[in-house]
Amino acid sequence: MSELTRIVVDAMGGDYAPAEPVKGAVDALAESDRIKVILTGDAAAIEKELEKYSYPAERLEIVPTTQVIETGEPPVKAIQSKRDSSLVVGLNLVHKGEADAFVSSGSTGAVLVGGQGIVKKIRGIQRAPLAPLIPTAKGVSLLIDCGANVDARPSHLVQFAVLGSIYMKSIMGIENPRVGLVNIGTEEEKGNALCKETFPLLQACPDINFIGNVEARDISAGAADVYVTEAFVGNVILKMYEGVGKTLLHAIKDALMSSTRSKVGALLIKPALKSTLKKFDSSSYGGAPLLGLKGLVVKTHGSSKANEFRNTILQCIQFKEEDVNGKIQEFLAKQSAEKEAAADKE
Amino acid sequence: MSELTRIVVDAMGGDYAPAEPVKGAVDALAESDRIKVILTGDAAAIEKELEKYSYPAERLEIVPTTQVIETGEPPVKAIQSKRDSSLVVGLNLVHKGEADAFVSSGSTGAVLVGGQGIVKKIRGIQRAPLAPLIPTAKGVSLLIDCGANVDARPSHLVQFAVLGSIYMKSIMGIENPRVGLVNIGTEEEKGNALCKETFPLLQACPDINFIGNVEARDISAGAADVYVTEAFVGNVILKMYEGVGKTLLHAIKDALMSSTRSKVGALLIKPALKSTLKKFDSSSYGGAPLLGLKGLVVKTHGSSKANEFRNTILQCIQFKEEDVNGKIQEFLAKQSAEKEAAADKE
Repeated sequence: MSELTRIVVDAMGGDYAPAEPVKGAVDALAESDRIKVILTGDAAAIEKELEKYSYPAERLEIVPTTQVIETGEPPVKAIQSKRDSSLVVGLNLVHKGEADAFVSSGSTGAVLVGGQGIVKKIRGIQRAPLAPLIPTAKGVSLLIDCGANVDARPSHLVQFAVLGSIYMKSIMGIENPRVGLVNIGTEEEKGNALCKETFPLLQACPDINFIGNVEARDISAGAADVYVTEAFVGNVILKMYEGVGKTLLHAIKDALMSSTRSKVGALLIKPALKSTLKKFDSSSYGGAPLLGLKGLVVKTHGSSKANEFRNTILQCIQFKEEDVNGKIQEFLAKQSAEKEAAADKE
Repeated sequence: MSELTRIVVDAMGGDYAPAEPVKGAVDALAESDRIKVILTGDAAAIEKELEKYSYPAERLEIVPTTQVIETGEPPVKAIQSKRDSSLVVGLNLVHKGEADAFVSSGSTGAVLVGGQGIVKKIRGIQRAPLAPLIPTAKGVSLLIDCGANVDARPSHLVQFAVLGSIYMKSIMGIENPRVGLVNIGTEEEKGNALCKETFPLLQACPDINFIGNVEARDISAGAADVYVTEAFVGNVILKMYEGVGKTLLHAIKDALMSSTRSKVGALLIKPALKSTLKKFDSSSYGGAPLLGLKGLVVKTHGSSKANEFRNTILQCIQFKEEDVNGKIQEFLAKQSAEKEAAADKE
């Protein structure tokens, strides 16, 4: 057996902390004997939750912390001032090599700032993108970048494409993942300045399977496995997904409750509808990794329940065992060797 | 009775031309006696369609043209070379003051390029935005800009906000329309460079009711009446709407057909569901106006049926009778007077 994957779970992050992160950790421990979970947070509160369950104590550790970063806090200041928070202490464990991964449902801004500032980027990575998996009609695709660093440059997007491809191949088992550039038309010359400059770079990149521009209307159909986009647009896509889905389902629910006839119908269709909508439930795919860091940092939804924590924790095993970061470093080494060779030629 | 609103309909534009634009024109003539419709296109083909209906011949005119601009053609070249196309001839009628409005379901690029190049912008308008109405849980909102001119500047977005407000007040009857800036967070300091620069300008603009940043997840809920955004993002929003809605409804349909039980249920819920989904059917709101031009140019969906043409044609009456362009000019005059006064002070 290979060594255990050591995963820190921020027990104080998210709407349902500490109950749900703790339950998710216990569930993951029951599911896999290849992990060790380290919970950071208020020791008494965590222990109180743990009393409800039986679990393999030798694979669960509590690292007590005294502070909590709240969702509304300015991230940079919070990371700097709350050195004994569950988030900062957890990220430091990864930085020091005492853990392989960090999972948090806390403030997105704090996870992004802390991930880059404490765990730090792999040498050669220009930006660490946040890359959630999004459900599509064909299965699941990666949307990269949805992070906090907007106004990206073309070279950033090319790195995102490579990082996303490595991730989808290693973690989701997709051979030769199709990379699409999110654009407002499918023709090469379409789009804003960023897209126009990025298109030929993606086309020339030997490390990806670039299929061209993808329009936003084809994203949910699964037109590509990796959707490359600048963070502002990525954020809009992710939230449109959430918003439109919610609005439509609300409207449908209201319609179903509008008459006796439709209420009876609703009862009959419920099982079939439930299993369909489950496919579009992002929590079953786990959280969004912040790629390109020296360790794995994963952000789960603020409203995550135990199931999402469990799935995210299990995802971390594969990230380590498939050596995703090793593959990223291989790519970077190859890229810099190519650059040097090109420079020598001149 | 005020004078007739003269509306050119491009009889050769869209997937179902000339049948559906002609039928839409006939339906609109039956609905309102305040319009005259001018059909541009292949006279024989139009007359063949017209034979199917009875209509007030004194209020319908055919202007025969010999060319058609296809969807795939590069817009600028098409506009320049096909001077006798239904689209170019139609736009020229508006330019020459022989018509008040032009409606086309043809190539979006050609409508945008032709609208700006032939009908021309009102003096003082920096960019003419394409502004579709989008259905929301609360009714309908305006998304401005979804056009072809990406990489907008802050001052463009401020004009969009004013144009959108005038439109929603005059055409949709919304008093003091709420203007939201599409952003990746609600706090003032959030977003990309464009949003950060635009926010204080919108806040300082006395001619609009600015309510702050709006996240994409709240768009479909109806968080604002006018969503201001740069065209690339606007296009993504519009197409996400379309795509996610389609994917979800497909999935739900599949689920309903998956078992005998669900099929029976589907029959029972059908009437209620249909009326709900009708609310989210963008065709009932008519096409998207290209605002800020010297005449009205409206782009309808490529897949428009008679109903959308009819609704779009009727919308044009209000645009003229409410003197939307007069109100836009008033605003521009006021703005330039303020600028001069400010310059005099210095």
